[in-house]
Amino acid sequence: MPELRKDPVVGRWVIIATDRAKRPTDFVRERVEIKGSSFCPFCYGNESKTPPEILAYRSDRSARDTPGWSLRVVPNKFPALGIEGTLNRQGEGLYDKMNGIGAHEVIIETPHHRETLATLPVSQVESVLWAYRDRILDLKKDRRFKYMLIFKNYGEAAGASLEHTHSQLIALPVIPKRVLEEVEETRHYYDYKERCLFCDIIRQEISSSVRLVAENEEFVALSPFAPRFPFEIWILPRAHQSAFEESSKREFEQLAALLKDMLGRLEAVLDHPAFNYVIHTSPVPETLNEYYHWHVEIMPKLTKLAGFEWGTGFYINPTPPEEAAKFLREAATPVAVTT
Amino acid sequence: MPELRKDPVVGRWVIIATDRAKRPTDFVRERVEIKGSSFCPFCYGNESKTPPEILAYRSDRSARDTPGWSLRVVPNKFPALGIEGTLNRQGEGLYDKMNGIGAHEVIIETPHHRETLATLPVSQVESVLWAYRDRILDLKKDRRFKYMLIFKNYGEAAGASLEHTHSQLIALPVIPKRVLEEVEETRHYYDYKERCLFCDIIRQEISSSVRLVAENEEFVALSPFAPRFPFEIWILPRAHQSAFEESSKREFEQLAALLKDMLGRLEAVLDHPAFNYVIHTSPVPETLNEYYHWHVEIMPKLTKLAGFEWGTGFYINPTPPEEAAKFLREAATPVAVTT
Repeated sequence: MPELRKDPVVGRWVIIATDRAKRPTDFVRERVEIKGSSFCPFCYGNESKTPPEILAYRSDRSARDTPGWSLRVVPNKFPALGIEGTLNRQGEGLYDKMNGIGAHEVIIETPHHRETLATLPVSQVESVLWAYRDRILDLKKDRRFKYMLIFKNYGEAAGASLEHTHSQLIALPVIPKRVLEEVEETRHYYDYKERCLFCDIIRQEISSSVRLVAENEEFVALSPFAPRFPFEIWILPRAHQSAFEESSKREFEQLAALLKDMLGRLEAVLDHPAFNYVIHTSPVPETLNEYYHWHVEIMPKLTKLAGFEWGTGFYINPTPPEEAAKFLREAATPVAVTT
Repeated sequence: MPELRKDPVVGRWVIIATDRAKRPTDFVRERVEIKGSSFCPFCYGNESKTPPEILAYRSDRSARDTPGWSLRVVPNKFPALGIEGTLNRQGEGLYDKMNGIGAHEVIIETPHHRETLATLPVSQVESVLWAYRDRILDLKKDRRFKYMLIFKNYGEAAGASLEHTHSQLIALPVIPKRVLEEVEETRHYYDYKERCLFCDIIRQEISSSVRLVAENEEFVALSPFAPRFPFEIWILPRAHQSAFEESSKREFEQLAALLKDMLGRLEAVLDHPAFNYVIHTSPVPETLNEYYHWHVEIMPKLTKLAGFEWGTGFYINPTPPEEAAKFLREAATPVAVTT
């Protein structure tokens, strides 16, 4: 008998298949392979092929927009939003619209074309997190922006158009729908219980441990109770913390280790799947609060779009999270995890 | 400058690209082609390869589960939900779950393997709508079901696993998240304005006409103001009506004509795209109401999953709906539309 489970955060019901549950090898799809054959604007020597850099980590005092960097942030060459101008909010009959003001940046995570977050040293993964933070703090000075969306598309099936490992940051003048729902639901929960919903989830998951994948001193990685996608993973800070960018040095070290570990496990278990991850953090106007708990959601792209799902918000997940967690726990990861 | 637009029904902000807007030929993807080469359980003579039929339209008094039918409804061989048992709602710590009780049926729209809703006679498309209605009315007798989800996946990229034209019906003991949001939002709007939000949208769209694609006496087809996907189309009844299954004979005739017309135009403009459609209708417990307005949402599958979108509910649409509507209006449709 399949099971219907409700996501406690947004109240979404999901069908979890239990009979004939899909195991990792049941997902037939293309393995993400880094070909490295064609011209890459993110490699050394091609710095002039991107817009001028906004930020770069360089230990050798090399010049702007030249080789020598270990990480580089540039504006997206084809931005979804424009940085200049005013919002000019207006109506159109019963509709609402505004200018598409925002920032759209690309974080080039390493100069090495063939590396990924699963293969880079933990210290370099940590640098990526610091770059996210540096850019968030800088963009927060611009009062037009209400939300900083940090995400990664890895592999063509997950929407990546360039294979050289990178993440993206979009600063938005509005709060995305799903984030708003999450924040509002956790606020209601807090109003009622005077506890953070995610803190309660973490306590319960650690205690039951069936969906726990791995943990270190500062973070836990788990398969959520009502995941939309097979092998979806959430990484959450153990201690209550509402905003990603408020993390400490020690927390970034430990997150880097666990993130690398999780991506390595996904590669091992699912044979190099395409995936997306998204950092869910508090909106800018309420960075510090007691009710929202920032976290990372990793979504491997395994199934052919069961198309109606995005029309209805109704998902069918062929792999129970308890099974997924078991596979991930047992996975041999390519590199030992430094914590 | 791109534009941010808010969907008036669910409050979702969408980025609409205006510069370098994508035209139909900019979407590179595989054309859906019906190959017809392998064994098909939905063709004449293979009736025993599906579970026994629940409903069939037969004009020749042929026997159950034998050829002679013009339309056939069967249980899904691999159902997402099980029909037998009780819901057994229960908690698991702070989580909520229940047995996955529900119906999952397949509507085989014609015995002809190479036809589609765009090529079938309007009268046969109308039969499909009657089959939807017949099944909804029958399943509504089962008090466990709160929502009837009718949808179609066409083409592999849209999640179809069999190419022979078919739709699916899932009867659910819960209301899908997005449907619930829509119903709640339209209820709030009605409480405030004492008008149906969709009726207001229809009035405004007919009056401005920039997003109107086609209309007949009973229905309008339009590109919505804040579509998530390029060339998304909504078909709505002109007159307020909360539930699909309450439509009259005349309405089904006219919907069949407009649906066939729209799918034909999508094929002409986008060169046989994969697509999904979903019928959005009122939940069973409130079939007849003044606030919700049933409609069909058609979503062509043109872009590679911009993966982060389903993690955030935040969409980037590269084709403004006004442009999409213009292309669709000007499309030569393969067959004249009978209204």
